[in-house]
Amino acid sequence: MSSDETSDQSVPDDVHQTLMEATYRALCAHGYADLTMQRIADEAGKSKSLLHYHYGTKRELLVAFLGFLFERFEKRVEATEGDAPEERLRFLLDKMVPDEDDDGEYDRFGLALAEIRTQAPYVETYREQIAQSEAAIRGRFADVIRDGIEQGVFREVDADRTATLLFAALDGARLQRVVVAEPTAEGERTPAHEAPHDVRAALDEFVVSHLVREEGT
Amino acid sequence: MSSDETSDQSVPDDVHQTLMEATYRALCAHGYADLTMQRIADEAGKSKSLLHYHYGTKRELLVAFLGFLFERFEKRVEATEGDAPEERLRFLLDKMVPDEDDDGEYDRFGLALAEIRTQAPYVETYREQIAQSEAAIRGRFADVIRDGIEQGVFREVDADRTATLLFAALDGARLQRVVVAEPTAEGERTPAHEAPHDVRAALDEFVVSHLVREEGT
Repeated sequence: MSSDETSDQSVPDDVHQTLMEATYRALCAHGYADLTMQRIADEAGKSKSLLHYHYGTKRELLVAFLGFLFERFEKRVEATEGDAPEERLRFLLDKMVPDEDDDGEYDRFGLALAEIRTQAPYVETYREQIAQSEAAIRGRFADVIRDGIEQGVFREVDADRTATLLFAALDGARLQRVVVAEPTAEGERTPAHEAPHDVRAALDEFVVSHLVREEGT
Repeated sequence: MSSDETSDQSVPDDVHQTLMEATYRALCAHGYADLTMQRIADEAGKSKSLLHYHYGTKRELLVAFLGFLFERFEKRVEATEGDAPEERLRFLLDKMVPDEDDDGEYDRFGLALAEIRTQAPYVETYREQIAQSEAAIRGRFADVIRDGIEQGVFREVDADRTATLLFAALDGARLQRVVVAEPTAEGERTPAHEAPHDVRAALDEFVVSHLVREEGT
């Protein structure tokens, strides 16, 4: 199945944008299990019937939402085209750790996404969209590494395998953080809470610094 | 809350072993969402009332099961004490990828465990047990790395941070595989399907080979 099966292909761009952003906020606020069309409609300031009219069921809306995340990721990566490979690689890595001013959104959305992902084996349309998105993330990491190798600024490594490591490490760190870090313990920092930044630093040490050729080596 | 709150502390060792192994098989066969006390009882060849008598609710039984996994991991690691640090490190890494003769158990159990983990933010007793287990896994990786550094066979690195990377990378790879790899497509190998072995190989290339001091370096 593909997104052709959503209820109505003619959803105007601005309405789509509004409803997808509302879905994001509703997932952060209520989690996956308690997400309802009414809650998304409330976040959007639209009627529930409008959501059903444009997207069909909640499941179909979520597939459209996963596609929206994928397109947003692709646009962000495209905006870096022309930058140096090392800069692009660091940009992609940084996108997978919480910002300094993150107020819990990384955790809340990370948990909601993990819940949707564990449903993927049971929901074919989720699985297909998630497989496509995750393959694209791996592929973008690999493209940047290959560019660096071709430009002679990265050492020769297996670009696909290295990309798989980078993505899996930051993805695993996020999962570990969102499932066990105490959401209420302000200021308390457990190893699980620190995992994304620790993994980011370790990837710099073991992978990025290895990739980047130094003068005369 | 701790495991003191399980219904009956006096469950005999052999009965506990039987019931925990049955829980493992029932999770692999039915997944987390469809796990019932009756299904576990059926796997064990025991009565459902015996399960309730010894463990209380299904939730309490699952906390005991997470503790059982933790103890099994600790015993396996203890059995390697005295081996060389590099050998112990490779053993721990190998434990996190599917065996060659794996018949889908890695995927089925990996998915069930991912589902339990995404419930952890909502179930305090799951969260506590999972946090303890994951901290122990990170800690065991770090111990082995520190031993290697102390014995002069590993380079000096930040042992905790390196341990966090190793665990997160293989954990993320497993999650990526279990959520999107087509379970029915025998023989088909997608990048998500290959992620655990690709990450294992990349960790050898970027981390283990860096850790291991070569003669004369």
